[in-house]
Amino acid sequence: MAGCFISFEGPDGAGKSTVIQAIAEDLRQKKQAKVLITREPGGSQIAEKIRQIILDVENSAMDDWTEALLYAASRRQHLVEVVEPALAAGQIVLCDRYVDSSVAYQGGGRQLGAQKVAQLNDFAIQGKLPDLTIYLDLPVEIGLQRVQKLGQGFDRLEGQKLEFHQRVRQAYLDLAANNPTRIKKVDAQQSLTKVIQDCQTVITTYLTANI
Amino acid sequence: MAGCFISFEGPDGAGKSTVIQAIAEDLRQKKQAKVLITREPGGSQIAEKIRQIILDVENSAMDDWTEALLYAASRRQHLVEVVEPALAAGQIVLCDRYVDSSVAYQGGGRQLGAQKVAQLNDFAIQGKLPDLTIYLDLPVEIGLQRVQKLGQGFDRLEGQKLEFHQRVRQAYLDLAANNPTRIKKVDAQQSLTKVIQDCQTVITTYLTANI
Repeated sequence: MAGCFISFEGPDGAGKSTVIQAIAEDLRQKKQAKVLITREPGGSQIAEKIRQIILDVENSAMDDWTEALLYAASRRQHLVEVVEPALAAGQIVLCDRYVDSSVAYQGGGRQLGAQKVAQLNDFAIQGKLPDLTIYLDLPVEIGLQRVQKLGQGFDRLEGQKLEFHQRVRQAYLDLAANNPTRIKKVDAQQSLTKVIQDCQTVITTYLTANI
Repeated sequence: MAGCFISFEGPDGAGKSTVIQAIAEDLRQKKQAKVLITREPGGSQIAEKIRQIILDVENSAMDDWTEALLYAASRRQHLVEVVEPALAAGQIVLCDRYVDSSVAYQGGGRQLGAQKVAQLNDFAIQGKLPDLTIYLDLPVEIGLQRVQKLGQGFDRLEGQKLEFHQRVRQAYLDLAANNPTRIKKVDAQQSLTKVIQDCQTVITTYLTANI
């Protein structure tokens, strides 16, 4: 089986981690596929050091473009060191967030502009888009409620206000509308079982048609 | 006196640091100007953390585009935190290396392409080019000899081979040829006294005409 690059997008609280685990399990059993689950910085030491700078709450003086450039740098290194070698080895790569996250969070949320952030990120990805992207769509209030219920601490990014997250969702919806072949939207308000089923259907359809 | 942003470019060994000190002394005495000498990361804690990642010899697995993105991120933060406030306060900012260094070293030296690296860096500088750039031009062999005589350790960037530095010089020469109004070339093979004199002439001419 040839390599296949699938990214998962959406807000925290949409269930990405659980969905990815279930999808991986399914692919390994039914398709006998080698599956790599990863997320930036994902085991690249350089990308990890970059990410530490971004998420350090002390760095509150960070300019929004600095942040976008650092995400792009971390993405580049993770792509080169982790994703591309796995694809070259024929694995299915399930990546928790990729370039669309920057377009949504920095472009939409921080209002740097979706198109500009996409252009910046092309220096990082050099045209390497996922073969398939699953966007777990969720109303902003529900996502934030779910994250709070989990009792996780809010990091610098999660601590933004409601309007920020609404701009993020709109940017994701625009991305999905503008890239209907690559990005498939799944309703993450449904039961987790149904969300996983919908994702499996999308992935099976893609793999059947393309591999 | 209004703020003025002057960058100094050229290879290590060209005498940038000494020249900048002499220029600053001269401007403070003769023009009664407030002068800030800086270089990236230049006192920005965030930019300093980014620079540590770039220059860490351990990071030899660093992809060239990752490096270019990190330089751009460090540049952005230094610009916002250090350069722009000084300019807003009416100071003359003398900056040891700026965007042309990335175009020369990453674009030319590492062969990422001058135009692409310039485009990438525009996300960092958002159009903020220096008012004046002095390029200290030096044949590659002489620059390397000077650096070795000083007995300084070679960091990861300095440890590149001769062809790398020749590509850097060519990129600088191309930049100077394509931006004759902004970039003034000074022959750094001359005596240090003459180099400083030439730089002072360029700067005085600029300031007289523009401020």
